[in-house]
Amino acid sequence: MARLVLKFGGTSVADMERIRNVALRVKREADAGHEVAVIVSAMAGVTNQLVAWVTEACRLHDAREYDTVVSSGEQVTAGLLALALQNLGVNARSWLGWQIAVNTDGVHGKARILDIETGTLVERLKQGQVAVVAGFQGLGPDNRITTLGRGGSDTSAVALAAALNADRCDIFTDVDGVYTCDPRIVAKARKLDKITYEEMLEMASLGAKVLQTRSVELAMKYRVRTQVLSSFEDKPGTLVVDEEEIVEKEIVSGIAYNRDEAKITLTHVPDRPGVAAAIFGPLADAAINVDMIVQNVSAEGHTDITFTVAKADLDRAVSALKGRQAQLGYKQLAPDPNVVKVSVIGVGMRSHAGVAQLMFKTLAEKGINIQVISTSEIKVSVLIADEYTELALRALHTAYGLDAA
Amino acid sequence: MARLVLKFGGTSVADMERIRNVALRVKREADAGHEVAVIVSAMAGVTNQLVAWVTEACRLHDAREYDTVVSSGEQVTAGLLALALQNLGVNARSWLGWQIAVNTDGVHGKARILDIETGTLVERLKQGQVAVVAGFQGLGPDNRITTLGRGGSDTSAVALAAALNADRCDIFTDVDGVYTCDPRIVAKARKLDKITYEEMLEMASLGAKVLQTRSVELAMKYRVRTQVLSSFEDKPGTLVVDEEEIVEKEIVSGIAYNRDEAKITLTHVPDRPGVAAAIFGPLADAAINVDMIVQNVSAEGHTDITFTVAKADLDRAVSALKGRQAQLGYKQLAPDPNVVKVSVIGVGMRSHAGVAQLMFKTLAEKGINIQVISTSEIKVSVLIADEYTELALRALHTAYGLDAA
Repeated sequence: MARLVLKFGGTSVADMERIRNVALRVKREADAGHEVAVIVSAMAGVTNQLVAWVTEACRLHDAREYDTVVSSGEQVTAGLLALALQNLGVNARSWLGWQIAVNTDGVHGKARILDIETGTLVERLKQGQVAVVAGFQGLGPDNRITTLGRGGSDTSAVALAAALNADRCDIFTDVDGVYTCDPRIVAKARKLDKITYEEMLEMASLGAKVLQTRSVELAMKYRVRTQVLSSFEDKPGTLVVDEEEIVEKEIVSGIAYNRDEAKITLTHVPDRPGVAAAIFGPLADAAINVDMIVQNVSAEGHTDITFTVAKADLDRAVSALKGRQAQLGYKQLAPDPNVVKVSVIGVGMRSHAGVAQLMFKTLAEKGINIQVISTSEIKVSVLIADEYTELALRALHTAYGLDAA
Repeated sequence: MARLVLKFGGTSVADMERIRNVALRVKREADAGHEVAVIVSAMAGVTNQLVAWVTEACRLHDAREYDTVVSSGEQVTAGLLALALQNLGVNARSWLGWQIAVNTDGVHGKARILDIETGTLVERLKQGQVAVVAGFQGLGPDNRITTLGRGGSDTSAVALAAALNADRCDIFTDVDGVYTCDPRIVAKARKLDKITYEEMLEMASLGAKVLQTRSVELAMKYRVRTQVLSSFEDKPGTLVVDEEEIVEKEIVSGIAYNRDEAKITLTHVPDRPGVAAAIFGPLADAAINVDMIVQNVSAEGHTDITFTVAKADLDRAVSALKGRQAQLGYKQLAPDPNVVKVSVIGVGMRSHAGVAQLMFKTLAEKGINIQVISTSEIKVSVLIADEYTELALRALHTAYGLDAA
């Protein structure tokens, strides 16, 4: 007998027929004698409708009222799934964030979970009652409903699994696992049986939208065995686990890409102490995150600086820097939204040399110019022109031996 | 400066445009310096959709989950109206039943309010903050959401007005007040400026669907000055008040009718002690309410008994009695669904004789046969064939001098 947390996303509970299917899936685990807690999202489309109403009611909306309105979507699904389970003869009840309580900080709209009071929940689980928990929501210190930010139900699930000391957290979604690369681009991409937390975290932050980044951080921190699997097919997915659990480690586990960044180059910047702070300070003040940064070797007291920001922030970043041209002393500002960041990820890099070199060589052979490089312990990322996205991904997938047989 | 509770029903908040109109109406009261609490229903149609999902999920549904799902409608409207008010520069916040808390008993689906903790609410009102309160919902002793039954937002409003000791409770709806009779049938029906609690209560129980019966009971018990008015027109409605407030009392204030009852006659019942208990006991056991009852004078040790039940219960009542024919000893059971109950209502009856007599005479002149009569201190009701409904209502309206000039 195990204690399981199962999470079903919006497409998995999109209508009553799918909710009934979810109920059947949950019943199977309950019938097998497991203790089961289920986290549900809002029915697909509901959250968007609620957000649209909020925006219509007040353009600059009060995040506390936003949370009150938007959290209702998960409330409905939780009640309906509890009913669908009861209809199958399963003992089940719904739990809202404030009832458990899932205590969060007071940052409405993107709150962080502080702790989950699991006392009563555990009692009920031990009595064989399935807990159907509304995801995405918690209770703030002001006794009002908070939400965890889009995709927050993943975080609800992993946090609950950690708090319940669950044996596994299954995230049911509309894909059947984590792939070596996006299968819509690389036909030979393979589903991974296992991936480490660290790799999953890189994948998530790099735009593989399988799991919310924050949920992977939590899973890693509390060592929650997390499985990503399909709610529409009945087969194992990808298990996100501790590195030690993976016996046959690949050097590279996957290749990710992110089209949401844009590049800005400042040319002929005076190369003196404090110039980086002078450039990036105003961006930070404007709440613009900078990702990759590269600075050329200085020539004659001047240098070029290239960096990336989110595409959505490009215009704001450009205007913040143009207003300071005199002060910063650069000659030219060149924005470029037509770039893609391609990353090779694998914990095996720690013990294997030549991983980055293989990446550079492969791209060179295809005539692809690398604009910016950044590396971490388990990742090499390059920025290239986005027209090469497909070519680069396929070539790298083959070069690292990831192609399906 | 007054303290006001305003309640807006589902049609008044049916979409964002109407919610914005409600916000303008509320702002006017706030700008006038009043302390304002607003009770809102779910957007028209939302509750029906939620109820349909609940029924689809589980035919014999758990009322606790029903409440969890269905209460979300008012939660959404409360948040949206708070936002719309903020958008107009009005200081406002939403309150859910469990946040206030509106404490109820544990009868999910049709809970009764036990008390309302108004401490924080009053503080905020005094600071000039408009309280937007989700109607229809409360918090049960099991720490779960309860709902008050269909139309329960009226009850929420009156109960809150009582708890806040408000100067007035305005119920905004899609009619502009209480009429002397249904204006769809009696063209000469007049809107009443004032009506007593007692009369309103009779009207509500008799099927005039302007206010939920329970809300009128509460208004009467706590002497809450309650006004029924239109949310679409800007003019006074009908004020439901204490009898002393009405100087020019009419003998009869209104004429109500109810088509939801059906008649059952048992003929040749042995006239012996205990026979009524033997007939009505089984009906009570089956949770069938009996309304009017008439028993003929005994002849040769036998009598006829006629009574009415809700039309929806007719089949069940008939089968409960048929199964006991031998035991009860009646000769014939005659059910008749084609009846209407017409009632003449007015506190003036207490001091004026001849009110019933005028009713009987008027109906006789039109050739309408009276099947059953029942009276209370301020009401005379008769059961007649339903094909005479319009004729009877119009004749009585004229006879009692209620016609508009």
